[in-house]
Amino acid sequence: MSPRPATINILKNCTQEGWIEQAIANLDTILLDHSHCERKAAGVALNLMFRYPSSHALVRKLTVIAQEELDHFEQVNQWLDRRNIALTALTPPPYGKKLSQEIRPNEPHRLLDSLLVSALIEARSHERLGLLGEHCPDIELAKFYRGLMASEARHYGVYWVLADTYFKRDIVEQRLEELSMVESEILSTLHPEPRIHS
Amino acid sequence: MSPRPATINILKNCTQEGWIEQAIANLDTILLDHSHCERKAAGVALNLMFRYPSSHALVRKLTVIAQEELDHFEQVNQWLDRRNIALTALTPPPYGKKLSQEIRPNEPHRLLDSLLVSALIEARSHERLGLLGEHCPDIELAKFYRGLMASEARHYGVYWVLADTYFKRDIVEQRLEELSMVESEILSTLHPEPRIHS
Repeated sequence: MSPRPATINILKNCTQEGWIEQAIANLDTILLDHSHCERKAAGVALNLMFRYPSSHALVRKLTVIAQEELDHFEQVNQWLDRRNIALTALTPPPYGKKLSQEIRPNEPHRLLDSLLVSALIEARSHERLGLLGEHCPDIELAKFYRGLMASEARHYGVYWVLADTYFKRDIVEQRLEELSMVESEILSTLHPEPRIHS
Repeated sequence: MSPRPATINILKNCTQEGWIEQAIANLDTILLDHSHCERKAAGVALNLMFRYPSSHALVRKLTVIAQEELDHFEQVNQWLDRRNIALTALTPPPYGKKLSQEIRPNEPHRLLDSLLVSALIEARSHERLGLLGEHCPDIELAKFYRGLMASEARHYGVYWVLADTYFKRDIVEQRLEELSMVESEILSTLHPEPRIHS
């Protein structure tokens, strides 16, 4: 079966059905991984604010994103408490590392690629939280996921707008095209361990 | 003149009078440095959450601190906008680096020292924002500083409580005694460039 084209505009292909089955069968692990993802997302935003401390638009918009990610981190951790899931380490799936390897080391490419990789991760999170919101058998938890997915959509928009602020539109679109191919390719093989980005 | 003993319990000596004169004469630079301090404070909290991701009390309490620091960062940046101060880089004073050098590299010392160094920095920030709140000639800005100083006091309390959660009380007190001596010693010579921790 060939991968289905994505309904979210910056993603190349949408998530394969195997992922949602894997996630629903391992909801506790998905919640724990989700907690780590929110902390990492806050870390990514803050790291960019440290790397470009004088870039006004970037600093101000990523402050809001970092705040929201920390807020979600706290909310997910409250779910972990409620379900008696200990806050333990989890090996990450290859997704984040593989995408980071696409970030070119020299400026201004590094900034462009960092913003677009974050946009793609947020877009994919938006899609997957939406799937959890639709298919999760725990009604309350499903509602929680649906509540979060709107923020993730806003976040990928912010990263895209920042890329568009600092770079010419055609350069942004061309690089996004390349990176979104890689992003979908990474996810074309389901990672055996259940993760938000497996 | 020998340094005055501090009124804030974990600080050895209180700020010398030269600092407040220097700060009042350079309010714009102090505001810009303050912005960098708030971003760094959020970064320190988040870094600890990354280094000890399974330490429940630490992660949950530092989430709140990181959120508050980001909130202050945003508020200070609004002051920068209002006064037309560009968000530019500033060379930091030696304070942070010298204190970090006191953090022993091996666990569990590293955790203890990191928590106590953060407690001392927050306590000193609390004291200095209080001095700005008292002496700043801009009434609105003075009120802003007084509003922030309460949070800084809570923050140093949180770092102290975390140290007390993970370590025996006498070990915490002994190490705090040593570090607070170093902290006051670093500030005994006024750094020539106006900074929150000059």
